[in-house]
Amino acid sequence: MRLISFTTGVRTSFGIVVGDGIIDAGARLAGEFEGLRDVLAAGALNLLRGMEGLPADLALSDVRFLPPIPDRATKILCVGVNYLPHIKEMGREPPEHPVVFVRFADSLVGHLEPMIRPRESVQYDYEGELAVVIGRAARRVPPERALEHVAGYACFNDGTLRDYQRRGPQWTPGKNFPRSGAFGPWLVTTDEIADPAALTLTTRLNGETVQHERVAELYFDVPQLIAYCSTFTVLEPGDVIATGTPGGVGAGREPPLWIGPGDRVEVEIDGIGKLENPIVDEPDAR
Amino acid sequence: MRLISFTTGVRTSFGIVVGDGIIDAGARLAGEFEGLRDVLAAGALNLLRGMEGLPADLALSDVRFLPPIPDRATKILCVGVNYLPHIKEMGREPPEHPVVFVRFADSLVGHLEPMIRPRESVQYDYEGELAVVIGRAARRVPPERALEHVAGYACFNDGTLRDYQRRGPQWTPGKNFPRSGAFGPWLVTTDEIADPAALTLTTRLNGETVQHERVAELYFDVPQLIAYCSTFTVLEPGDVIATGTPGGVGAGREPPLWIGPGDRVEVEIDGIGKLENPIVDEPDAR
Repeated sequence: MRLISFTTGVRTSFGIVVGDGIIDAGARLAGEFEGLRDVLAAGALNLLRGMEGLPADLALSDVRFLPPIPDRATKILCVGVNYLPHIKEMGREPPEHPVVFVRFADSLVGHLEPMIRPRESVQYDYEGELAVVIGRAARRVPPERALEHVAGYACFNDGTLRDYQRRGPQWTPGKNFPRSGAFGPWLVTTDEIADPAALTLTTRLNGETVQHERVAELYFDVPQLIAYCSTFTVLEPGDVIATGTPGGVGAGREPPLWIGPGDRVEVEIDGIGKLENPIVDEPDAR
Repeated sequence: MRLISFTTGVRTSFGIVVGDGIIDAGARLAGEFEGLRDVLAAGALNLLRGMEGLPADLALSDVRFLPPIPDRATKILCVGVNYLPHIKEMGREPPEHPVVFVRFADSLVGHLEPMIRPRESVQYDYEGELAVVIGRAARRVPPERALEHVAGYACFNDGTLRDYQRRGPQWTPGKNFPRSGAFGPWLVTTDEIADPAALTLTTRLNGETVQHERVAELYFDVPQLIAYCSTFTVLEPGDVIATGTPGGVGAGREPPLWIGPGDRVEVEIDGIGKLENPIVDEPDAR
């Protein structure tokens, strides 16, 4: 299933994507669940599966995409320097353990929503990534059981203000400007993706490929990341692990390739879909 | 006012501390607000002020303390290496900008609740700090207006698993073990604390002073921290900035002084109160 969170402009809901349409599960369940996070927490994906044959209630073109899990209470754990070519281009050494930082939910937008370059920086960079959404609470899960705790996968753009990232040893500032990253277009459940390592990720800037890598090349793979993160925090249904970006970011180029107004970034993962976002300057900035 | 979040064991509420008692504002407002975060977001502190003369509904000894803002949706921004003696004892250089990392709400407990040493580490350290709670949304606030956005102050113990903090360049793992830090005992509103720089912080381990510093010695002061954090993220009512720890942490001693079962840590700030927590081993660990 492809599960979407969306707003009609008047109300926020969630549903199942079928072709160009949406089965509005939120409305059909009459408010029983506040959102997908709530559905996952209730272990109620089967309720949504039972709706798959229904006719679409809305067209995809009628809604605005939200991040699949838009809730502010979501833990969003982001993994840094987790593909060797990216480790090299950033001038770093391979880490002994996964490198984990945090994004707040309001730093992310959904598919097709503008990603915002803040007035403080022009060193705005893309980072295409695979995002893992937790389906079943996980604490101290061994790698060999880790995938059992996954609800599904999505594309992620860990958009970064490089100068703010480098202002100190902790990357929080460069990773949390409002609406500077993206997450979507939807969550694809694990029945469609048995092994995330079999996926391939491509990032395009204005149609040109800038990152292209097999997820199998992850330095710490998805099971290891879930195992590690679940050691130091409880992963709950709806929580997100963004698994790190491949080589090819703008900061690793000579000269650096920054994104700005007029640009479009796509993060595409086969078997998931394409997360596409225009870049805009913050209103009333510059 | 001293504002507390608490649980009776049956229900969770919030109220005003008067002597040894609590005016149960949550119950008296009949569920109008879900918690203190909600009261702050509604700009409804005056409703609580209007209750100050009422008789206490509960004794402090009848409840268990929660962190003043216990909500999972709270942004908890923690500032590192922000007093010169602590910068020196950690072998670091004074930072050019505030160093900011994130704790999740479930890494914190309230006053008198046990702080948990996880089975993965014995390098468990205290960090007494002043916490700032936001009262009015803040984005790009200049330092000279920053204190207008504060609801109040509390004590904070940024309990840290040092080996996990040092496992890589990002400190997230060492700062987020469940119930490894503490926040409380209550939130003291700004009418009682005009200038946080006038406060003095003392941390005691089993009654012995291990940290003692004037908040005036902060390398980046409270207004600068609010200004900086509000540059890269929107601070909303209830959000927290933990301002950094003074010199004297266990990791800075020779030999290191770790905390463990049987220990009690107090973080006391004059004008606020004392946050006291016993340290325990995780149940069924070791």
